[in-house]
Amino acid sequence: MKIPSQLPSVEALIRELERLPGIGPKSAAAMAFHLVSQPADRIRRLAESIGILPEKVSHCSTCGSLTEEDPCRLCTDPGRDDSTICVVESSPDAFSIERSGAYHGRYHVLGGVLSPLDGIGPAQLRVRELLQRLKPESVKEVILATNPSVEGEATAGYLKQVIGELGLEIRLSRFARGLPVGGDLSYTDEETLAVAIRSRKGIDE
Amino acid sequence: MKIPSQLPSVEALIRELERLPGIGPKSAAAMAFHLVSQPADRIRRLAESIGILPEKVSHCSTCGSLTEEDPCRLCTDPGRDDSTICVVESSPDAFSIERSGAYHGRYHVLGGVLSPLDGIGPAQLRVRELLQRLKPESVKEVILATNPSVEGEATAGYLKQVIGELGLEIRLSRFARGLPVGGDLSYTDEETLAVAIRSRKGIDE
Repeated sequence: MKIPSQLPSVEALIRELERLPGIGPKSAAAMAFHLVSQPADRIRRLAESIGILPEKVSHCSTCGSLTEEDPCRLCTDPGRDDSTICVVESSPDAFSIERSGAYHGRYHVLGGVLSPLDGIGPAQLRVRELLQRLKPESVKEVILATNPSVEGEATAGYLKQVIGELGLEIRLSRFARGLPVGGDLSYTDEETLAVAIRSRKGIDE
Repeated sequence: MKIPSQLPSVEALIRELERLPGIGPKSAAAMAFHLVSQPADRIRRLAESIGILPEKVSHCSTCGSLTEEDPCRLCTDPGRDDSTICVVESSPDAFSIERSGAYHGRYHVLGGVLSPLDGIGPAQLRVRELLQRLKPESVKEVILATNPSVEGEATAGYLKQVIGELGLEIRLSRFARGLPVGGDLSYTDEETLAVAIRSRKGIDE
């Protein structure tokens, strides 16, 4: 959105907002004009909430997830199961799994997926750190919870290989795939439906 | 989106972002996690762009539009036609009209529309300031360019009445309504279509 030169600061803000995910030029302009009409203290509070991030938030030196304390609470919580590590692409993935309440082990955040065309190989992900965590032999299961996408599957396949090369007794697993709970057959894409059919289970299993 | 308590600053930011127009909890979380993974200088630049707004941007004391100089450039530009004032609801409306390149007069920003249920009457809008601008009798036309919504029409109707009571020789007008240029009949809502049919013009007019 072109803004008259009488508002260079709003124009600058729109350019910054446009770089956020899912924000087009029109949404950016709407957000900027909404903001500029808010009370000064609300505007400054939002600015502070953003500006404080770099000094507050870092990555856990053990699992790699976003945290304000190092090591993070997921790593230091004595109530969790040390024998299982769930490997995820990003911190929000780990937080989503936490919200399910169905997992009580530790996490390892890769920081992305293998993507040779973008120059992202094993060295750009936290793969070496993962292998280090498996060496003490206390880990009995590693869940490869990368996303069910092409890159996620390729990354899981690569991890399967390098973890196998360690020669340790570790079970490797992957989340089940199928219909989402509460989903609707007629709105489910064909690939998911095909997986759900092939992986069908006896009704009493 | 519930974020584990190991990230209170991200949680606080999500709460602020959720209050922006068109941003739901999921978008707010996606924006916050995107931001937190950006380089520190980019994060600080966005924070600054927002924090600087209250001191930079104010309302033009003449026309009421958002500006960083008072009076604004639209009011001080000597090349514009002083005999026409275009009354709009908000500054972005004025900027949209500017981009059309079809208007060269002055503006007056009301700062909203009449909305008795929300406690917004003439005193909450810049109506008195508009009437003051008409008194010197140099203005020959006032375009009532409030939006073609129920509230916009009601506000235009109210302005028509109070401007009429001044007893001045002022033409009052409203933007033409009809099919949007480049629009498609089958995607046009019935009310717009009805207006376009009733207001049809001879092909050579």
